[in-house]
Amino acid sequence: APEAKIAQLLVYGAQVLLVEDTYDVAFDLCYEMCEAEGWYCRNTGINPFTTEGKKTVAYEVAEQLNWDVPDVVVVSVGDGSIISSVYKGFWELHQLGWIERIPRLIGVQAQGSAALVNAWQHNVSAVDMQPIDAHTIADSISAGLPRDRAKALRAVRETNGAYIAVPDEEIVQAIPQLAQQTGVFAEPAAAAVYAGVRRAVQSKAIGTNERVALLITGNGLKDVRRAQESVSGGLRVQPNIASIRQALRLN
Amino acid sequence: APEAKIAQLLVYGAQVLLVEDTYDVAFDLCYEMCEAEGWYCRNTGINPFTTEGKKTVAYEVAEQLNWDVPDVVVVSVGDGSIISSVYKGFWELHQLGWIERIPRLIGVQAQGSAALVNAWQHNVSAVDMQPIDAHTIADSISAGLPRDRAKALRAVRETNGAYIAVPDEEIVQAIPQLAQQTGVFAEPAAAAVYAGVRRAVQSKAIGTNERVALLITGNGLKDVRRAQESVSGGLRVQPNIASIRQALRLN
Repeated sequence: APEAKIAQLLVYGAQVLLVEDTYDVAFDLCYEMCEAEGWYCRNTGINPFTTEGKKTVAYEVAEQLNWDVPDVVVVSVGDGSIISSVYKGFWELHQLGWIERIPRLIGVQAQGSAALVNAWQHNVSAVDMQPIDAHTIADSISAGLPRDRAKALRAVRETNGAYIAVPDEEIVQAIPQLAQQTGVFAEPAAAAVYAGVRRAVQSKAIGTNERVALLITGNGLKDVRRAQESVSGGLRVQPNIASIRQALRLN
Repeated sequence: APEAKIAQLLVYGAQVLLVEDTYDVAFDLCYEMCEAEGWYCRNTGINPFTTEGKKTVAYEVAEQLNWDVPDVVVVSVGDGSIISSVYKGFWELHQLGWIERIPRLIGVQAQGSAALVNAWQHNVSAVDMQPIDAHTIADSISAGLPRDRAKALRAVRETNGAYIAVPDEEIVQAIPQLAQQTGVFAEPAAAAVYAGVRRAVQSKAIGTNERVALLITGNGLKDVRRAQESVSGGLRVQPNIASIRQALRLN
């Protein structure tokens, strides 16, 4: 994980174990330790309370749009917990009659961690999915065998949505694009949503006249290194006017 | 400045010049360039719109406390722009009769950048203040000759407040203390406020029965390196149960 995320955990007083392996291995080890030691397991792919908690973003989208929900909601997908919860949230509102329909849900994955994209494209069921080696710069959505794959596939299938893969280069490029067009500085996994929308519009999975909500799920300050890769650096200048004029090619 | 702050500027499309010198030198150069080139100068120590903008924190504090303002408001101080604006905000509310009194304002500075603390303690006027060499890990409040010194001294003097200096070690320690007691992960300049309150309570500048508002003016993710210094690191473990048990001294 990026240093900022680890620092944040430590500052809040957590005891942090850094497993020298992938997210998937760390997830399984954590689960094993919980079983062995009777610890409480709060992993989002497992713990139903976190699923319930993430539902509220659907409530917020609906409420803030005065119950006239968008045509499409786009969310980045690693374990698939968020897209599953978004679906559950909209489903509940629909059952209550507070919204007229459930938006189509589009899940965006990194090309190097696209287990759900593949399963959706080839109509593989959740139980038949096999682990892949996940490699992406977007650490928050790096997952070889998404833990919430059953619910995550259902969310897209039931809403006539889609899964879309985006390459890491487009994810990095999306960081400044999103910031400059919307004012939101996102971490890679969140900027991936913007890259996915561009692809979805090109492939006509999203129509140009549709209303689309993008869920930006992580602050850009959590992964400064990737943000730096997305732009050219600042210009170093000496502390005098001449140096500044030269750097800016004035006169 | 920390890398995160520079990255953020670049991601939003700014052209960033990194002046190889102190904040004070960069400030003056920027001002000179604005004069020479007719640029708009948005430096907070100069531009009155930014002063007006920062006033709103006083409105928010008053409104959210139902116009029953705290006894003391504590804010960290570099150029002194924020404390000046906080004063102006409360002053306006008082003129309007919306609040019964203006809170005492306490400004916290780093010991290595304590120009206003010194001026306040020795009753030096703003015009007589001399530049010092500012050195502190809290980059947001590093200022050798605070630009808003006249207003910043007035804010404290008029409200029977105080200026307090805190050493860098206490600023760093305050990062996890504040996070663990309030849930807010602050950058060093903001955590300094918490360190200052501890000192103010010890010196009885703040009574133990008083209501105190701390303004936390910067996100901890903006300076991850200092956050890392404030805590011991995570424990690296091999991807197996035995390694985890050993790290945690379980058997």
